[in-house]
Amino acid sequence: MQFLDEYQETVASAITKYIFKDKPEELYGPMNYIISHGGKRLRPMMVLMACEMFDGDLKKALKPALAIEFFHNFTLIHDDIMDEAPLRRNKPTIHTIHGINTGILSGDALMFKALKFFENLEPELYKACMRVFIHTGLLLCEGQQYDINFETQEEVTFNDYIRMISYKTGILSASSFEIGALIAGADFKDAKAIFNFGKHVGIAFQIMDDYLDVFGNQEQIGKKHAGDIYENKKTVLYLLAKEHATDEERKELEFWYSKKTDNVDKVYSVEKIFRRTKVDEKSLLLIQEHNELAQKYLNKINVSDAKKKPFIELANYLLRRES
Amino acid sequence: MQFLDEYQETVASAITKYIFKDKPEELYGPMNYIISHGGKRLRPMMVLMACEMFDGDLKKALKPALAIEFFHNFTLIHDDIMDEAPLRRNKPTIHTIHGINTGILSGDALMFKALKFFENLEPELYKACMRVFIHTGLLLCEGQQYDINFETQEEVTFNDYIRMISYKTGILSASSFEIGALIAGADFKDAKAIFNFGKHVGIAFQIMDDYLDVFGNQEQIGKKHAGDIYENKKTVLYLLAKEHATDEERKELEFWYSKKTDNVDKVYSVEKIFRRTKVDEKSLLLIQEHNELAQKYLNKINVSDAKKKPFIELANYLLRRES
Repeated sequence: MQFLDEYQETVASAITKYIFKDKPEELYGPMNYIISHGGKRLRPMMVLMACEMFDGDLKKALKPALAIEFFHNFTLIHDDIMDEAPLRRNKPTIHTIHGINTGILSGDALMFKALKFFENLEPELYKACMRVFIHTGLLLCEGQQYDINFETQEEVTFNDYIRMISYKTGILSASSFEIGALIAGADFKDAKAIFNFGKHVGIAFQIMDDYLDVFGNQEQIGKKHAGDIYENKKTVLYLLAKEHATDEERKELEFWYSKKTDNVDKVYSVEKIFRRTKVDEKSLLLIQEHNELAQKYLNKINVSDAKKKPFIELANYLLRRES
Repeated sequence: MQFLDEYQETVASAITKYIFKDKPEELYGPMNYIISHGGKRLRPMMVLMACEMFDGDLKKALKPALAIEFFHNFTLIHDDIMDEAPLRRNKPTIHTIHGINTGILSGDALMFKALKFFENLEPELYKACMRVFIHTGLLLCEGQQYDINFETQEEVTFNDYIRMISYKTGILSASSFEIGALIAGADFKDAKAIFNFGKHVGIAFQIMDDYLDVFGNQEQIGKKHAGDIYENKKTVLYLLAKEHATDEERKELEFWYSKKTDNVDKVYSVEKIFRRTKVDEKSLLLIQEHNELAQKYLNKINVSDAKKKPFIELANYLLRRES
């Protein structure tokens, strides 16, 4: 999508412009390292998109957009420590290179830098954006903790799961849109509507991620097939299957999810239950539902259809990754 | 000091009132655990003291005062992970009980909660306080990184050291005073003056801490004698000694500081050099210098002497711990 490429260029050159020159290098080097490795940088683009939707000044939104990207990377640094992840974007993670202490500290510092990047805004707007941002930070911590809890929690309900993914991923996209709208001077109702659009696209995206793990075209996704099953992750597929399975199937499912094994029989058996309980269709339906909810919120917004078009394109891009 | 006791009671009851009831418990439980274990809670009291100095509304300053305390505890949680500290205030540290992941995450969440506790302030004041607070957070990270660097850095200058301790400890006290003053509506000059008062008292306090480690009355301090020497910590005593030592003494000092040993000969030899280079007198002089600087800033402030008295008493309390 051309409009995304343009935003991406804007974000990339801003990141280069604002590269940290502060000292000590041992603290700021790792921060520059993770930021310069890119990723899709969707969230800062969302700030700019929403700002443009409400005819805002993109220059004014640029530093807050970077704030969102710094913040996102702060969460990645700390998450990678928690997950003991050796790689991120095909590069060694910070804690792998510099140790856990530098990981903790450079994450903390990146978060403070993110907060600083709102300081150009006038007080009223500053406060409005900071409230959204800080609340998002707290929900992200809660979502991460729920995710950790789920690993050992016996009963995880479907609602528990939706809350967890919306806190962990939906809310940050949602807030990126909301902050962009606020900076453009959108009214409270419109800002909330674009927030809710982002939230439901985010949820749909996460369900799609679970779906593709098992039912996706592996070559296009570039991830190990059924990695979530090997990892016993309580994904939307697992939760739907448990809900719709016979007693016997449920027992079998629980049996397989109680062991960590690379045995292909596990994936074969679990997938068979997934197909019998039709969780593929069911999760696609859920994606559709959340996408429709997102569209409903988008429709409420008082701007021209032309202004809404990029948002529909973005949702389609995120949710039809196989097509 | 009676005025401190009163403030302490105010802070303690506010902490009880605002205990976190949020979920998940696995995240908020550890946060409540560290906050309820107390400590001296000097920093929130500093917010209240400064607010009262400028005739401000203590009620308005209460949540920001708690923010400072939450923030301080966030840094303690993460520092304890980095230092692998098993105990804090005689209780097991959070990462010791719940693991490093919960330590990282509950620290992050406590930081966001701290930021949230400024939200009652009107936008102009909110922004002013947040700027001070966020900048302090960043300097704290930098100070912590300098401290880590010093462990392996060959040449640490005296100025390097003063910067490190002022970032690590001085600035937070300084900012506590400044935020209290801002909330009371003090003008920019007075707020900066009380900031600088706090900064220099903080630096003097830290030098005193180094001094007492070797020259203090162990029973009164309740810490192991010369712990810093055993740990090869580059304290103000070590840096002054290196500066004023003969070549031979400097070599001996470097020899002892290159090994980790519990050998009492080490402490005996290092202390002998400390005495020969008169670093005891020199560090007491430095403490006096910073205390005088602090008083100079206090004198500049345009309030009655009666209003300044608690600040002088606090400085004396912090700096004359042996008397």
